Amino acid sequence: MPRTTDYKFSRRIRATPQSMIREILKVTERPDVISFAGGLPSPDFLDTEGIRKAANSVLKEEGKAALQYSTTEGYLPLREWISNRYKKRLSISVDPDEILITNGSQQTLDLVGRIFIDEGDPVGIEAPGYLGAIQAFSQYIPEFLSVPLNYDGLDTGQLAGVLDSYDPVFCYVIPNSQNPSGITYSTANRRESATLFRNSDTLVVEDDAYGEIRFTGTHHPTFRALLPQDRVILLGSFSKIVAPGLRMGWICGPEEVIDHTITAKQASDLHSNIFSQRVLSRYLADTDIDFHIAEITRAYGERCTLMLRMMDEMFPEQIRYTRPDGGMFIWLTLPDGCSAMELWRRALAKNVAILPGTPFYTDGTGDRGVRLNFSNADPERIQAGISRLAQVLAEYMGS
Amino acid sequence: MPRTTDYKFSRRIRATPQSMIREILKVTERPDVISFAGGLPSPDFLDTEGIRKAANSVLKEEGKAALQYSTTEGYLPLREWISNRYKKRLSISVDPDEILITNGSQQTLDLVGRIFIDEGDPVGIEAPGYLGAIQAFSQYIPEFLSVPLNYDGLDTGQLAGVLDSYDPVFCYVIPNSQNPSGITYSTANRRESATLFRNSDTLVVEDDAYGEIRFTGTHHPTFRALLPQDRVILLGSFSKIVAPGLRMGWICGPEEVIDHTITAKQASDLHSNIFSQRVLSRYLADTDIDFHIAEITRAYGERCTLMLRMMDEMFPEQIRYTRPDGGMFIWLTLPDGCSAMELWRRALAKNVAILPGTPFYTDGTGDRGVRLNFSNADPERIQAGISRLAQVLAEYMGS
Repeated sequence: MPRTTDYKFSRRIRATPQSMIREILKVTERPDVISFAGGLPSPDFLDTEGIRKAANSVLKEEGKAALQYSTTEGYLPLREWISNRYKKRLSISVDPDEILITNGSQQTLDLVGRIFIDEGDPVGIEAPGYLGAIQAFSQYIPEFLSVPLNYDGLDTGQLAGVLDSYDPVFCYVIPNSQNPSGITYSTANRRESATLFRNSDTLVVEDDAYGEIRFTGTHHPTFRALLPQDRVILLGSFSKIVAPGLRMGWICGPEEVIDHTITAKQASDLHSNIFSQRVLSRYLADTDIDFHIAEITRAYGERCTLMLRMMDEMFPEQIRYTRPDGGMFIWLTLPDGCSAMELWRRALAKNVAILPGTPFYTDGTGDRGVRLNFSNADPERIQAGISRLAQVLAEYMGS
Repeated sequence: MPRTTDYKFSRRIRATPQSMIREILKVTERPDVISFAGGLPSPDFLDTEGIRKAANSVLKEEGKAALQYSTTEGYLPLREWISNRYKKRLSISVDPDEILITNGSQQTLDLVGRIFIDEGDPVGIEAPGYLGAIQAFSQYIPEFLSVPLNYDGLDTGQLAGVLDSYDPVFCYVIPNSQNPSGITYSTANRRESATLFRNSDTLVVEDDAYGEIRFTGTHHPTFRALLPQDRVILLGSFSKIVAPGLRMGWICGPEEVIDHTITAKQASDLHSNIFSQRVLSRYLADTDIDFHIAEITRAYGERCTLMLRMMDEMFPEQIRYTRPDGGMFIWLTLPDGCSAMELWRRALAKNVAILPGTPFYTDGTGDRGVRLNFSNADPERIQAGISRLAQVLAEYMGS
C-alpha cells in the first residue's frame, strides 16, 4: 500500500498565486459563452499558410540545424531582425548581442525576477499590474510596491514616494496600451517619470508587448530612449504580431544583465526551440510584416471602437472605463459598493465572461476593476456579448 | 554620458555556475576539431523529412490551434502517447494527467528545483553528476550531497549515510546510461537503493533521458516500479529519440507535485510551444518510432564499440573507463597526478576536444575525470580522433 506523503514544497512555490484565472478561463471555454475574459489575439490573423511555407523551407533547406541543439542566446538572424526593427520603428540602437530569445515574453519576466530579486527585495509594479508579471516575480518573494495608474500613466507623486522610500531593485512598466488597463502613458508622463528614475538607483523594466498594435494617437518615446541605456531592460514579444503558439519573445539590455540572463536561461531550458526560431525568422523575411501588423491593428481598432460605442450607449453612467489607443484590453471601474466577482458570476449566468480585477493587484484590492478583451471575439460576438453584459449591469446596479 | 551602473544581482544567479562548458564548446566548434566534448545526438537520425510532413499536416489541418495560446499542462495526445509508451516499454501505469510537457528535460530540472528547494536544503546527487542538473538546482542554492557512483550504480554505503544524516529533499539519479559516466545501475543496486529510499523521507527524481537508447545488456526495473508511486518523480525527453531542437521533455509525478509544477511552469513561460507539441505528436503517430529508435541504438552501439576497442588497443593501461550499455557517453578516469584540464589543453592543440570532469562535481574535485561523447562523430572521425587522443595521452603520461 503506498504511504501518504507529506511533501515539503519550497516557500517560493507556496508564495506563487495559484492562478484563479486558470479556473475562470476553464469555465469560459464553453462554446455557448461569449468570452471577453481571456487575452487571446484574434485567430483571423494567425497566418497558418505563411508559417507553413516557412516551416517547409526551413526543414528542406536547413532541417538538420533546425532540429539539433543550439545556442542559448538564440538564432542570430532573428536577433538581427529585432535589432533592425527597433532602429526602424523606434530609432533605438540595440546590438543583436544585447538580445536574448526567450519562450514568449512570460519567460523574460521569470528571468528578470530570477537574476534580480532576493527575498524581500522591493519591486515596483503598476496598479493594476500585469498578472503574468505578478505571478513570475512572486516566485522570488519580493516586496511589491504598487504605483497607481492614472489615465495618462504612472501616478508620479506615488512613484516619487516609492523610489525615495524603498529604492526598488526595478520597476516593471507597460507604457503602451498596458495590460490590463489599456492605458498608454503620455509623453509628459514618461518624461516626468524618467526624471524620477534617473535620480534613483532603480532599473526600469519596460515591457512593450503591445507597442506595435496602436490604432490611434501619436508615438511616445520609450524609457529606453529617455534614460541612460544601462538603466533600462526592454521586453518584447512575437505573440501579438505573429503567433503566441510559437512562444517567442525577447529581452534586451546591457551586456552585464544579458550575460546573467543567458546563464539563467541556460539553467532553465538550455535554449529556445530553434526550429520555431528559424521558422519565425524565415516567415519574417518572406512576409510583408508591416502590412500584416496594419491589418491586425485595423481590425482591433474597429473592435475596440465598436465595444466602446456600445458601452457609451448601453452601460450605466456610473461605470468608468479607459479608451485604449492600442493593445487588446479595456478596463472598467465599477462604482462603490459593486463587486467584480459578483458581476462575473452574474454575467456567466448569462453566458458572458469577464475578468474580475483582484488578481491584477498585489494587495488583495481591485474588486471594482474589470478587464475586457476586445481582440479575440469578432464584431458579431462583441455586439451580442456587450448587449448581454449591459443587461446584467443594469440589473446588478439597479438591484 | 551614461552613468556606470553597479547592478545588484540576486544571490541565486551569483550562485549559479557560469558554464565553463559553454566556453569549452565554443572552441570545439571549429571544423578542424574532432569533438567528443559535446552531448549532441547524431545528425544522421534527425528525420527532417518526417518532421516536415508532420508540420505540413498540422498547419494545414489544425493550424489555428497550433499557433494560438494553449494550456500549461501540454497537448493531451502527446501526454497520452507518453503514458502509452510507459505502459508498453516499462509496464508502468502513468495517467496523462500526471504528465506535464516541458521545454526539454532541462526545464524539468529547473521546475523540480523551484518547487522543492529552499536555500540550504540538502539535495542528493550522483558524483559525477549531470552538469545540467547541477546548474539548474544551484539556482535555488541547495546543499549538494554527493553519492559516488560505482560501476554497478550508487555507492549504497554512502547513500545510506547521506539519507540518515541529512534527510535530503530529493535525490536526483540517472539509473540508465548515466550522463556523464555511461554507468547503468544493476538490478541488485536498484533494489538495495530502493530499500534505503523506502525507509527515508527522500523523494527520488529519476531522469530517464537515455533509457530508450540501450544497445546491450538487459532491462532493469525503474525506481518508479520499485517504490511507492508517490515517492518518485520521472523525467523524460524527446531529444535523444526525435530531435533536441524541438525542446520537448516531460515530468511525471503524483498529482500534488504536478499541480505545483504547473503553477511554476505557468509563471515561467505559460506553456510549451504548442506548434512543436502538435508536430511532434503527429510525427509520433505517423512514424514507426520503434524502428527509428532501433536504428539510432544500433548506430550508437557501433560507435561506442569502435571507441572502446580503439581505447583498449591504444590507451595507456593506467587509464580506466566505463563500458556503457547505452546512451551517449564514456567516462575516463586518469591516473593519480594527471589533470583532465591539462589533457584538454594538450588534446585541443592536436584538434581533438574532450570534456574535463570538474564541472560534474559539486565540490571542485573531479579533475581526473573525462567525458567522451560517442554519438555525434561518425566512425571515421571517431577513428581519427581516438588515434590522436591516444598519442596525446602517451606523450602526457610518458612525460
